[in-house]
Order: sequence, then C-alpha cells, then structure tokens
Amino acid sequence: MTKIEIDSDGSPFPKPIVLLGSIVDGRPNFFTVAWFNRMSRTPNIWGACVGKKRYTLKGIRENKTFSVNFPNAGLVKETDYCGIRSGMNVDKSQLFDVFYGELNTAPMIRECPVTAECTLYNLVDVSSHYLILGEVKHLYSEEKYMTDGELDQKKLNLLIFTKPATQYWTLGDVVADAYSIGKELDR
Amino acid sequence: MTKIEIDSDGSPFPKPIVLLGSIVDGRPNFFTVAWFNRMSRTPNIWGACVGKKRYTLKGIRENKTFSVNFPNAGLVKETDYCGIRSGMNVDKSQLFDVFYGELNTAPMIRECPVTAECTLYNLVDVSSHYLILGEVKHLYSEEKYMTDGELDQKKLNLLIFTKPATQYWTLGDVVADAYSIGKELDR
Repeated sequence: MTKIEIDSDGSPFPKPIVLLGSIVDGRPNFFTVAWFNRMSRTPNIWGACVGKKRYTLKGIRENKTFSVNFPNAGLVKETDYCGIRSGMNVDKSQLFDVFYGELNTAPMIRECPVTAECTLYNLVDVSSHYLILGEVKHLYSEEKYMTDGELDQKKLNLLIFTKPATQYWTLGDVVADAYSIGKELDR
Repeated sequence: MTKIEIDSDGSPFPKPIVLLGSIVDGRPNFFTVAWFNRMSRTPNIWGACVGKKRYTLKGIRENKTFSVNFPNAGLVKETDYCGIRSGMNVDKSQLFDVFYGELNTAPMIRECPVTAECTLYNLVDVSSHYLILGEVKHLYSEEKYMTDGELDQKKLNLLIFTKPATQYWTLGDVVADAYSIGKELDR
C-alpha cells in the first residue's frame, strides 16, 4: 500500500445529484448540483453549493424558497442538460411537467421520484461558491417507489455523479446494514 | 404520477461516506460521516456535518487540521464501528494502519484507497450540527486504483450510505457521460 500524492484539486468520490428548482424572471428554472447533502437534523436542513454567478440564485434570493428534485436514471439527459445550459440563455421551464405543493414558489419536477420544498434558511459564503441552506418543509414521492410503505432505493434508481471521470451512475449492491455490522468489532 | 407527501424529516438519497480523522487527547480518532461533500472549487474546500457534541470536534478545534478517509467495501465493518462507537468510550487508534503526510496532526488510514489532509477553513453553525469546512492540502491514493493514470471508481469501490433503509452500498453501472449526453437536448 504505497501511497502517492495525487492532484489536490480533485474530489474523487461519488456524490448525490439534484436539480434545484426556483422561479427566476417569472418562470420555473432548474439547475443541476452535485455538491449537495444534508446539513442538520433539527430542523431538517439540506445544503447545495453553487457558483456565485448562477442564474438560479436570483430566484432563490427573491422568493426565499426553492425545490430539490432527485432525478433517476431515466432523466439523465435532462439532468445533464440542466447542468451545462444556463437559464440565462435557454428556457428550461418546458423541460418537465412542473407541479407545486404548499409553497407557491418552489417548482417541482413531476418526473422525479422524490422532490422537496424548502425555505431558504441561510446563504453561506464559501470562497468560490455559496452554500444554499434550505429547511425541508415538505417531501413528496409516489407509492410505486415504496416497499412496505418505505422508499426503496432500488426502485428510486437515483443518479450518482462521479469524478475524476465525469459520469452518472446508479447504485449497485447492498454491502451491509448500517448501525449493525460494526458491532462485530466490539470487544 | 400521483404524488403523496412523505415524512419531511427524512433524507432519502445516496450519500458519500467518509471517516474523519483527528488527534484527540493525544491519539488518532476516526469518526464516520455521511453528510459530506465538496463546498468550493477555489480553494478546494470540503464540508462535513457533525453533531455538536462529537468527540472528533475537540481534536479538529485544537489542531486546526483533520483528515478525510474514503473507505471501500472491504472496510464496511470498521466504517460502521466508527459511526456507532464514540472515541469518548473506545480507543479507535489501533483499528487501522495510520500514516501521516505533510501536516503532522491529520492521521490518515492506510487501508482507505483515497485519503486527504485538510486544514480547518471555518466552522459553521447549522442548527443541530456544525459544518466543518476544510481546505484540501494534499490528496493520496495508490497506483492500483488507477486506470491510465486516473482514479477509477470501479477499482476504488467506495461505500455509499442510504436512507430510509440504513445501508451501505457500492456503485452500480455508468448510465452516461456528464457534460455530454445533455447536448442531445439542444435545439
């Protein structure tokens, strides 16, 4: 196990991928983000990092709301498109069947198996990017993605993003149950 | 596609999983975190969210350094153990073959295919959790995880954590190349 130093500018690990939704200049816009995760348990706060000049930021700042949409493998083209084309130049409002929940300014994507409505909790300056912190107010899915009343990752089939080869992947196999297998190391 | 509201307290998406390493009370300690991702491009900043009473925080605050270690499927037991057992109660310093790089207080795990040395960039209060922001100073891996000089996710075989079923998974198959397939939707 001879360690070698590699490019310290990378981030060679699998990342969840989401489409952030907001109303910008009067119409729904969606932007793809892979620098995303949960940030707090109570309340349930999720964070997404975006470049400081992103079009999506305008809508989130104005409305103080946004949506988080989790695309599955069937939406890989649309997911990539929303990452490489800015709402400044193209109209993405017709790309999806858009629906709304309780908040009126968080456009959600009906084709996505899981979607969330968030209110803006805070905007944190992290050097080249802003970390958008959102409090999850409502989560939506469908019966067909569940097994025994619980969301089933195999049925959701969500996309995962990787580096250094920039690719979208699906989940593979379960290795072990968490909060369980580690007990075998108790002495 | 009839949408139903589900438990808004969840976070039903795949997450990268890492072992944060720090020197606490004079010995290496490792703590498992799934709320983790990149946060800035320039400099390369990564963020990890941890509960405010975590033992690991003590070492990170004292030394202003920490490591990020990416476990593969073969380390699933150790990964789970480091999440369910606190360094307050057990000594985790003998669990791995520990090595050091340029920073002297960021203990890294030799068994992990990718490891990073970070300096503390900022500590952000996010309600129930702290977001530890670290600037990546050095990244390490091994030749055997590379193909044509680049890290290969299939060879790395890193663990991914899911909810609501709390499980560790591997990556599955490549669906498409990013920054590419979306161009098919250009009009």
